[in-house]
Amino acid sequence: MGLDEGAQKPHDQLAAWLADDMAAVNLLIRDRMASKHAPRIPEVTAHLVEAGGKRLRPMLTLAAARMCGYDGPFHVHLAATVEFIHTATLLHDDVVDESARRRGRPTANLLWDNKSSVLVGDYLFSRSFQLMVETGNLRVLDILANASATIAEGEVLQLTAAQDLATTEEIYLQVVRGKTAALFSAATEVGGIIAGAPEAQVEALFTYGDALGVAFQIVDDLLDYDGTDKDIGKNTGDDFRERKVTLPVIRAVANASPEERAFWVRVIEKGDQQPGDLDQARTIMACHGAMQSARAEAMAWAAKARAALVGLPDHPLRAMLNNLATYVVARIS
Amino acid sequence: MGLDEGAQKPHDQLAAWLADDMAAVNLLIRDRMASKHAPRIPEVTAHLVEAGGKRLRPMLTLAAARMCGYDGPFHVHLAATVEFIHTATLLHDDVVDESARRRGRPTANLLWDNKSSVLVGDYLFSRSFQLMVETGNLRVLDILANASATIAEGEVLQLTAAQDLATTEEIYLQVVRGKTAALFSAATEVGGIIAGAPEAQVEALFTYGDALGVAFQIVDDLLDYDGTDKDIGKNTGDDFRERKVTLPVIRAVANASPEERAFWVRVIEKGDQQPGDLDQARTIMACHGAMQSARAEAMAWAAKARAALVGLPDHPLRAMLNNLATYVVARIS
Repeated sequence: MGLDEGAQKPHDQLAAWLADDMAAVNLLIRDRMASKHAPRIPEVTAHLVEAGGKRLRPMLTLAAARMCGYDGPFHVHLAATVEFIHTATLLHDDVVDESARRRGRPTANLLWDNKSSVLVGDYLFSRSFQLMVETGNLRVLDILANASATIAEGEVLQLTAAQDLATTEEIYLQVVRGKTAALFSAATEVGGIIAGAPEAQVEALFTYGDALGVAFQIVDDLLDYDGTDKDIGKNTGDDFRERKVTLPVIRAVANASPEERAFWVRVIEKGDQQPGDLDQARTIMACHGAMQSARAEAMAWAAKARAALVGLPDHPLRAMLNNLATYVVARIS
Repeated sequence: MGLDEGAQKPHDQLAAWLADDMAAVNLLIRDRMASKHAPRIPEVTAHLVEAGGKRLRPMLTLAAARMCGYDGPFHVHLAATVEFIHTATLLHDDVVDESARRRGRPTANLLWDNKSSVLVGDYLFSRSFQLMVETGNLRVLDILANASATIAEGEVLQLTAAQDLATTEEIYLQVVRGKTAALFSAATEVGGIIAGAPEAQVEALFTYGDALGVAFQIVDDLLDYDGTDKDIGKNTGDDFRERKVTLPVIRAVANASPEERAFWVRVIEKGDQQPGDLDQARTIMACHGAMQSARAEAMAWAAKARAALVGLPDHPLRAMLNNLATYVVARIS
């Protein structure tokens, strides 16, 4: 942590500061993803866990707990819990989306089969549940149970909202909470609770995680139209092909001419997509400033995340979380 | 509960005795399967929940709690929890097995799609988790978390054990615990715990549920070869077509002549199945007494279940649970 700290990515700053804790989390994850009888379980899990995901969610839990002065053992359990929930949802998402790539590698459903992805996801979800019960903290259990329900509900909502141009920004926001923000906010909130932080700080941690998660997901949805395959570790244009109604689409549809509206009805609602349609979608979005206004929305959520940090203890980790909120949206600006 | 009690099926005896409690459970289930934003969730759930499953698992929880003198509200939460876990696993099972019928009706994956079944299953699993957290009883949470892990592990094990004639009876038993017995034993055990029953009674309840579940699943596996479609509410021969190595197969393979072994290798390991093969399998099983010895095994587990009841309070519900253990295996004798 020398003078060049400013040059480091905030994610790497966090990883360096939390190195010992993260080593404990990784050990616990490796221990709990084992299965005495079913070797398929660690095979599938290792494929995903060791693909070098950024481990952002467990770091949020560790950072929240440490920032609030925690020195017990259970932030490690909670960080592993959060990563297991995340991994379980990725396995199920890839089945639902019929994805072929994740984190730059072939998906588990492609390498093994959908059955393994469904069942190993269930196993990891159960394991996450065992881990959180070990903390013996009922409030933490309540928060994580609620987050799980929000995640699952958001996924179903996304399924039914896809292909429907009538999807509102309110519904989009619920989908985004389910996909990303609910687990981010639970991750930071339980870190504060296990540390016994005052209620106002717990609330601030929730708000930070929620706003960071929303910003993160809007950026992700933008990069699906605007980024490169390398940027996002999967194929760009996937959302378009899956006919998902994300923020840039909603904003472009809101301002569409009759011809443009016919285009959106054809490609999103009817699913009749021709070569060149993705480029056409990008062009329409650019004309109406849809990308730009969605970008501004992401920036506003990042600002909200930073503002929430003000109520938290003055700590090097707080500065890193502040930088993280800026960095998350810097990918698109 | 008149003089003709002996003529009633044990399941109907339980349903009559527990009618008020079950009404409360059904109300809670209906309330919690709702989703404010995603109507697909109650649609899919209602299809399965209202198909007239026997609600055996929640009744086990209610019976255990009442028999041990419980008069609080939380046995209802736990019964609903157990039914939600069961429903979630059915939804995922049907995706994994590519089943077309369940409880005599088309499966959800057929009526909607695999995506809905996966995600609605996840939602119900989360909801079950919320329900159990509401009891505020950490020991109950621990038991249900462990049962969930055993269920998921058993499902993966079944996936890898299928098509493998080297599957031992030990592995088969682990699969059976995952498919059925782990949730039966958790259902009875948590009923005793929420009632504050003495440790010896809690253990007896666990043993009863476990043995009942094993007997139940062996019978189910036998009926797949021996029953009618109407008996089991799905298609007979499904296990054979899915190349599952169940107890009658294991016992027939153990005594196979070289020609018979070649048959099993072809139909189970290679999956090369011709018309008439299912009948051929039945004939081989009959010759070697494989069906009969598997039947005897189921009877022994039922006897173990009845024996465990001796340590429990003398109560009309105890007599019904005793009858239930007898009835479960009577389907095959």
